[in-house]
Amino acid sequence: MSLVSVLLKPGEADRIVAGHPWIYSNSVLRLTAPVTDGDLVQVKDHRQRLLGTGFYNSRSKIVVRLLDRDRIEPNHSFFRQRIGAALAHRQRWMPGTTSYRLVNAESDFLSGLIVDRYDDVLVIQISSLGMELRKSTIVEVLKDLLDPRAILERSDTASRKFDGLAEAQGLIWGEPVGEIEVDLNGIRFLTNLAEGHKTGMYLDQQANYAAVGDLAKGAHEVLDCFSFAGGFALHAARAGAKRVHALDQSADAVAAAQRNAAANGLADRVEFETANVFDWLKARTAVGPSEKVIPRYDLIILDPPSFTRNRSSVPDALRGYKEIHLRALRLLKPGGLLSTFCCSHHVDRVLFEDVILAAAIDTRVILRRVASHSQSPDHPVVPSIPETEYLKGFTYERVA
Amino acid sequence: MSLVSVLLKPGEADRIVAGHPWIYSNSVLRLTAPVTDGDLVQVKDHRQRLLGTGFYNSRSKIVVRLLDRDRIEPNHSFFRQRIGAALAHRQRWMPGTTSYRLVNAESDFLSGLIVDRYDDVLVIQISSLGMELRKSTIVEVLKDLLDPRAILERSDTASRKFDGLAEAQGLIWGEPVGEIEVDLNGIRFLTNLAEGHKTGMYLDQQANYAAVGDLAKGAHEVLDCFSFAGGFALHAARAGAKRVHALDQSADAVAAAQRNAAANGLADRVEFETANVFDWLKARTAVGPSEKVIPRYDLIILDPPSFTRNRSSVPDALRGYKEIHLRALRLLKPGGLLSTFCCSHHVDRVLFEDVILAAAIDTRVILRRVASHSQSPDHPVVPSIPETEYLKGFTYERVA
Repeated sequence: MSLVSVLLKPGEADRIVAGHPWIYSNSVLRLTAPVTDGDLVQVKDHRQRLLGTGFYNSRSKIVVRLLDRDRIEPNHSFFRQRIGAALAHRQRWMPGTTSYRLVNAESDFLSGLIVDRYDDVLVIQISSLGMELRKSTIVEVLKDLLDPRAILERSDTASRKFDGLAEAQGLIWGEPVGEIEVDLNGIRFLTNLAEGHKTGMYLDQQANYAAVGDLAKGAHEVLDCFSFAGGFALHAARAGAKRVHALDQSADAVAAAQRNAAANGLADRVEFETANVFDWLKARTAVGPSEKVIPRYDLIILDPPSFTRNRSSVPDALRGYKEIHLRALRLLKPGGLLSTFCCSHHVDRVLFEDVILAAAIDTRVILRRVASHSQSPDHPVVPSIPETEYLKGFTYERVA
Repeated sequence: MSLVSVLLKPGEADRIVAGHPWIYSNSVLRLTAPVTDGDLVQVKDHRQRLLGTGFYNSRSKIVVRLLDRDRIEPNHSFFRQRIGAALAHRQRWMPGTTSYRLVNAESDFLSGLIVDRYDDVLVIQISSLGMELRKSTIVEVLKDLLDPRAILERSDTASRKFDGLAEAQGLIWGEPVGEIEVDLNGIRFLTNLAEGHKTGMYLDQQANYAAVGDLAKGAHEVLDCFSFAGGFALHAARAGAKRVHALDQSADAVAAAQRNAAANGLADRVEFETANVFDWLKARTAVGPSEKVIPRYDLIILDPPSFTRNRSSVPDALRGYKEIHLRALRLLKPGGLLSTFCCSHHVDRVLFEDVILAAAIDTRVILRRVASHSQSPDHPVVPSIPETEYLKGFTYERVA
């Protein structure tokens, strides 16, 4: 069957040749025939050279999401190959893990599809019409490859709206699933897949939980800011930190984290507090003119939610990042460690470190970088698709 | 004893307050009294606020190298504290290693002093007059802290000339040292400290040797370009790579690498060849119009010397980096790994990855980043002193 061609305007092909899979509607010169939304099309430059094939959706700003540079058929065999390759990637780069993002959309050359694996439970998230229409094929492939106990759908993201799709949530195959235990680096997290944030857990920090946890060995006092389900706090406590104080604004998150601490036998060493981190840090660092802030922590972890929604909110976000670093650095002992993360795609690694440095200068603290962090290998970075990179972090030693 | 003050021009203090230890001669407003080169001075801004203390040298473009933001005495106790802290840093971040850079100048807040440790042999390198005049104190501190068998000097770097110092080389304490065995991650390297490059070995890659070696597990064919003493090649062979082909332009380096391979029982799996890497890659990728280049390697390592000497040579360097990546990518199997490094301070991480991406686009190869690399922890990065960061690298999977 011949495919309808989407021809691009002159000059619009370069990004695509460079490996980016998104065709914006304003790049399109014309279609060679009418297309039904969700159909496979081929994309060509204005000289009719093939750039790739992908799913078309006139209702999306991203009018084509390319799947390949060559002609493909989006059938069972295609999805089996792609999802199989994604699985092999996790098995190679995260050996021994049982919970991970199995398919991460563009990172795995499957724009519009996310699949999280929690041992024998899978959660899929679909944000494009093209994938929505192949959902049953995808579910069949997942069953073939992984023999799961259940497959849930959590397609409730805002981006779905942009593709003209309604929210969808619930069991799509297998037995009903209530609360499950998710194992990250040997620590158990109780997770209700139907109600949690995102798809239940922040899997992208799994490798960093382990790395930062190791740094907590021998620490007397650890402060974990924006602790959510307790990922960093529990890893620090298990590594041997004497006392971990963890903060989160959400009472629900704190309650969940407390249950997780108990489930891992770590409740005696971790104290979770419902607090706005900005306010808490401010209160701890606001002292009278004759008083001094006492730096009391051996390790401080800052893992805030993204402070940006788009490029225009970056200046505000930078003020926010600087503020928490200013406060945190005053509470960090000389010789202590600061592990700090930024999950905003709009604030890159260089800009993020600049903000941290600015805070260090203002507090007259000298920092030495001892580790760089990125998103876990189940959220692979494809450099030709900048959107695939968003999580960055650093660990610094406070020298003086 | 009161110190002479070096007053800075208005506007020149900001960099120093931000943590940079170098005072350039053109930043200086005036001295409050005559100073002997090599003496300790205090540096103040034009409003007479103390910025720090450090060594003065009128013959250097860097007229003061600050040691501290406060007043210090550069005596035995000062050096013992600083070198002791440097030692503690290595013991913490590189536990179990016996060879490392013990003191890395600005990274350890001792501008002008480098000390490499090869188990019980120390090699010092002094590039400032201030340190040169305290050499005997430094040697005493090193003896106290480490009880070495020998301390050698290898102050033969070009930068020494800028401080008006003659080259100096030889034994300065202990018994004469000929060839020694340097242990990096359990692999032995025979090194003649008097004759090798730099101070004998590239210690800054120690952590990366181990990391990239791990990636070679199960590889059939590995290509190590710019192999020098065989660091990456031998780590790959020990990890289980079936066949490693290693290239270096220097016949001496190849001979040394071959001896190292034999010393570690790996000679049957590593073949070292004296070759210009550019020419070699060109010859392997130059094919007739009807032929195809056969991608044969599971892992390719590119660890070239710096292609830049200064900022103006960056464009040429980028052409060089792109060229080797273009060639190497054509020899890399789909699914294979490329580990590539850049040790030029003038080419930062972002620019380096841009060049790699450009080569990938030209060869129609899709790369997925699977690891980021930096210099080993014995070459600590102090973000407020950008010169302390120079080595960056990435490992990519060739997806297609």
